[in-house]
Amino acid sequence: MMTRERAPLSLERGGAELEAPSELDATRLVLDAVRLASASSRMEITRTTGLGRAAVAQRVAELLRLGLLEESGGAPSTGGRPPRRLSFRASAGYVLAADLGATSINVAAADLSARILHHRAEDSDIAHGPEAVLGRVEAMFDELLAESAAPGALWGIGIGVPGPVEFFTGRPVAPPIMPGWDGYTIRERFGLRFGVPVWVDNDVNTMALGEWRWGVARGHRNVVWVKIGTGIGSGLISDGAQHRGADGAAGDIGHIQVAEEGVVCRCGNIGCLEALAGGAALARDADVAARSDRSRWLAQALERDGAVTARSVALGACHGDPVCVGLLQRSGRLVGQVLASIVNFFNPSLIVIGGGLATSGDILLATIRETVYRRSLPLATRELRIVPSGLGEVAGVIGASAMVVDQLLSRERFEETIGCLAA
Amino acid sequence: MMTRERAPLSLERGGAELEAPSELDATRLVLDAVRLASASSRMEITRTTGLGRAAVAQRVAELLRLGLLEESGGAPSTGGRPPRRLSFRASAGYVLAADLGATSINVAAADLSARILHHRAEDSDIAHGPEAVLGRVEAMFDELLAESAAPGALWGIGIGVPGPVEFFTGRPVAPPIMPGWDGYTIRERFGLRFGVPVWVDNDVNTMALGEWRWGVARGHRNVVWVKIGTGIGSGLISDGAQHRGADGAAGDIGHIQVAEEGVVCRCGNIGCLEALAGGAALARDADVAARSDRSRWLAQALERDGAVTARSVALGACHGDPVCVGLLQRSGRLVGQVLASIVNFFNPSLIVIGGGLATSGDILLATIRETVYRRSLPLATRELRIVPSGLGEVAGVIGASAMVVDQLLSRERFEETIGCLAA
Repeated sequence: MMTRERAPLSLERGGAELEAPSELDATRLVLDAVRLASASSRMEITRTTGLGRAAVAQRVAELLRLGLLEESGGAPSTGGRPPRRLSFRASAGYVLAADLGATSINVAAADLSARILHHRAEDSDIAHGPEAVLGRVEAMFDELLAESAAPGALWGIGIGVPGPVEFFTGRPVAPPIMPGWDGYTIRERFGLRFGVPVWVDNDVNTMALGEWRWGVARGHRNVVWVKIGTGIGSGLISDGAQHRGADGAAGDIGHIQVAEEGVVCRCGNIGCLEALAGGAALARDADVAARSDRSRWLAQALERDGAVTARSVALGACHGDPVCVGLLQRSGRLVGQVLASIVNFFNPSLIVIGGGLATSGDILLATIRETVYRRSLPLATRELRIVPSGLGEVAGVIGASAMVVDQLLSRERFEETIGCLAA
Repeated sequence: MMTRERAPLSLERGGAELEAPSELDATRLVLDAVRLASASSRMEITRTTGLGRAAVAQRVAELLRLGLLEESGGAPSTGGRPPRRLSFRASAGYVLAADLGATSINVAAADLSARILHHRAEDSDIAHGPEAVLGRVEAMFDELLAESAAPGALWGIGIGVPGPVEFFTGRPVAPPIMPGWDGYTIRERFGLRFGVPVWVDNDVNTMALGEWRWGVARGHRNVVWVKIGTGIGSGLISDGAQHRGADGAAGDIGHIQVAEEGVVCRCGNIGCLEALAGGAALARDADVAARSDRSRWLAQALERDGAVTARSVALGACHGDPVCVGLLQRSGRLVGQVLASIVNFFNPSLIVIGGGLATSGDILLATIRETVYRRSLPLATRELRIVPSGLGEVAGVIGASAMVVDQLLSRERFEETIGCLAA
C-alpha cells in the first residue's frame, strides 16, 4: 500500500528550489500527453505540450525512473535507430471503484488507465442507509483485494452515489433518494479503512467521465450524459473538462419542472421531469394501466410477477403493446423537451442516453431524438448526435476509477503523488 | 497601423528553435498573470504561473522590451531596494469595438485592457441589412479614428451582433432578427477596410465577457448573463472560460419552449420564451391592453406617443399601474422558470440580468429571483446570486474589445502578435 507521506521529490536535486514548480508542471504535462492525448514519442509529446525538446527528454527520463512511463521497441524501422514507443505504465498501481445505484452496487479494481481488472455486482437498496450499504461495499472491496492479482500499490478509491455531492468534501447534500446519507462522511470512512485518498461524486458525473474516457463520448468536448433509470440525472463535459458547477450540483435535470400541476416529486416540488418520465413514474402508471386492464400485456405481467416495473413496460413496448409504447413515448417526449432546452442553452456536440430505461429498445431514444431536433435551433443541432451509452453498467466504475487517477495526477496533488512513488 | 507580417521573434535568438514554443508559452503565461490575474511582482507571477523564478525574470524582461509590461516604483519600502510594480501596458495599442443591437449601434475605441477611450452611440435598425448598418459602423469607426488621440497602433476590431454567429468564421448563422445577414462576411469586410484582424460574436457573448472582465461578474467562474431586451438571449462563463458550445450557439435561451400553444415566434416555433416574455411581446400585449382600455396608463401612453413600448410598460409599473405590473411579473415568471431549469442543469454562482427591460425597475428582477429560488434545488442555489448588470449599454463594446485582445494573446495567435510588435 502506498504511504501517504510527502517526499518533495523535485526539491532533492540541484537545490533549484524555486524552479521546482516549473519542472513539476512540465512533468505533469508530459505524463498527461502520453496518458490522455496518446502521444507515444518524444516528438509527439513536444508537439502536444508545447515544451522544448530538451525539457521533454528530461521529463520523460524522470517519468521512466518513477515507473509512470514505459518504453518499448517501436515499429520496424527502415534504417537508423528504431523509434522507441512510450506508453503510460497503467500497471504501476491500481484503484478501487464503487458505483452505488438506487438498487445496485457495482465494484471494480482497475488499473491506472481505468481498465477494469476485476468486477463484481449485486442488488442493494440505497435507502438502507450508509452503514448497511457502505459495509457491503467494504466487504466487496475486501473480496476484490483478496482475489486480486493487481500489480503495484493501491493508489486510491473512487465512489459514485446516486445523488448530489459536494465534491470538495465528498459529502452527499440533501440527496432525494438516499435517506440517512445527507452529509455522511463517506470519504473519511474509506480513507481510514483503506489508508488511501478517496473521492466521491454524483454517479452521473462518474458515468459521464467513464463514457468520455473510454466510451462513445471519446474525443468530444461538449457532452451531456443523461441517465434515465429510476430517477433522471445528467453529467456534463464542458469545453473538454468535467463541469460540476459552482456547488457541484450541475446536471440535476430530473427536477426541472415540465408540468404546472400533477404529480408531487420526491423532492417536494410539483411536475418534475423525473416524477413524470423516470422509471418509477413509468412503473406507477403501468400499475394503473394493469389494474384498469387497459393493457393486456401489463395485466398479465402484474398477475405473473406480482408487480409491474419500468422493465415490464420496456418489454411490452418491444412486443408492440400500445399502452407500453405510449408510456415510453411520453417519457421520451418529456426528456426530449428538457434536452431541447439544454441544447439551446449549452450546445453540446453529443448527448449520450444511458441508465436502465435507455436499454429498453429504440422507442425511447427515437422519441427523444425526434423531440430534440424539432424543438432546438438549427445552428445548435447542426453537428449534434444523440446516441445510447456504449459502456452500460460499468460506465460508473470506469469513471470512478478515472476520477481517482485524474485527481491524484492533478496540478494540486501531483507533487504529493510522485513524492509517494519516489519514497 | 500594425503590419500583419509574421516576424518569428523567438526563433531569432540563440538558434534554440525547438525550445521556442516553450518560451512563447511561458511569455504568454507571464503576460496573462499580470493582465488578467493582477500579479504585480515577479514573486506573485511565480506563484500564479507555477514557473520558476529565473524563467519569470527572463520572460518579464522580454515583455518589458516588447512594451507589453511596464514597471513603476512600488509602495514606500521600509528598507532595502523598493519593490518595483509591474503592470500591463494597456496603452501599447488600442482596439475598435462595435455592439450592434436590434435598434442601436454602440462603437468605442478602447485600450488593451478594454477600458473605453472614446464612445459613440446612435439609433439604428439591424433589419436594414449589413450594407447599410456596417456602412454606418465604418463611418463611426472613421470618426473615432479621426478624433482619437489613442496611443500606439490599432491592434484589431471586435464586433457583437444580435444573433447566433459561427465564431470560427465570424459569420451570422440564420439570425432570426437580422434579415439579410445570414452568412455575411463581416470579418472579411472589416479586415480589408482596416487592415487588422477582426472577431465577431453574438452580442450576448461579448456582453457576458465585458461584465466578467470589468463588471459585477468579476471573479466568478460560472456565470449566466441574461439579456432581456426586444429578444432574450444569454452568454455563459463555464469554469472560468467563455462557453460558446460545439457550434457557437450556446446561450440561446430565447427559443426555449415555455408554452405548448399560443404565440408563434419569429423563429417559426410556438411558445418560445422570447415570444412571450421579451420586450416585443410586452409591447404587443401592452398595445392590446391600451386599446381595450384595461390600463388607463397604457391608454394615455398610446394616445400621447402614438404607440406603446416595453418602456411604457416599465414606466407604468413604476407608477403602480396594475396591468403593467402584471405584464412585467408574467415576463419575470417565465424568465425565472427557464432560469430555474438552467440553475439545476448548469449550477452557476451568478446570474446577471441585463438588456433594456432589466433597467425597468425592481419588479422584473424580484419576480425572476422569487421564481428561481422557489423552483431550483437547494444545493444549486446555496451560493447563487441574481443581480442586475453593472455596465449597462457599454457592456457590449467593453466585451468586444476584451475579445479582440484575448484572441490576439491566445495560444494560437500569440507568436504572430508579438512578432508584429518586434517587427
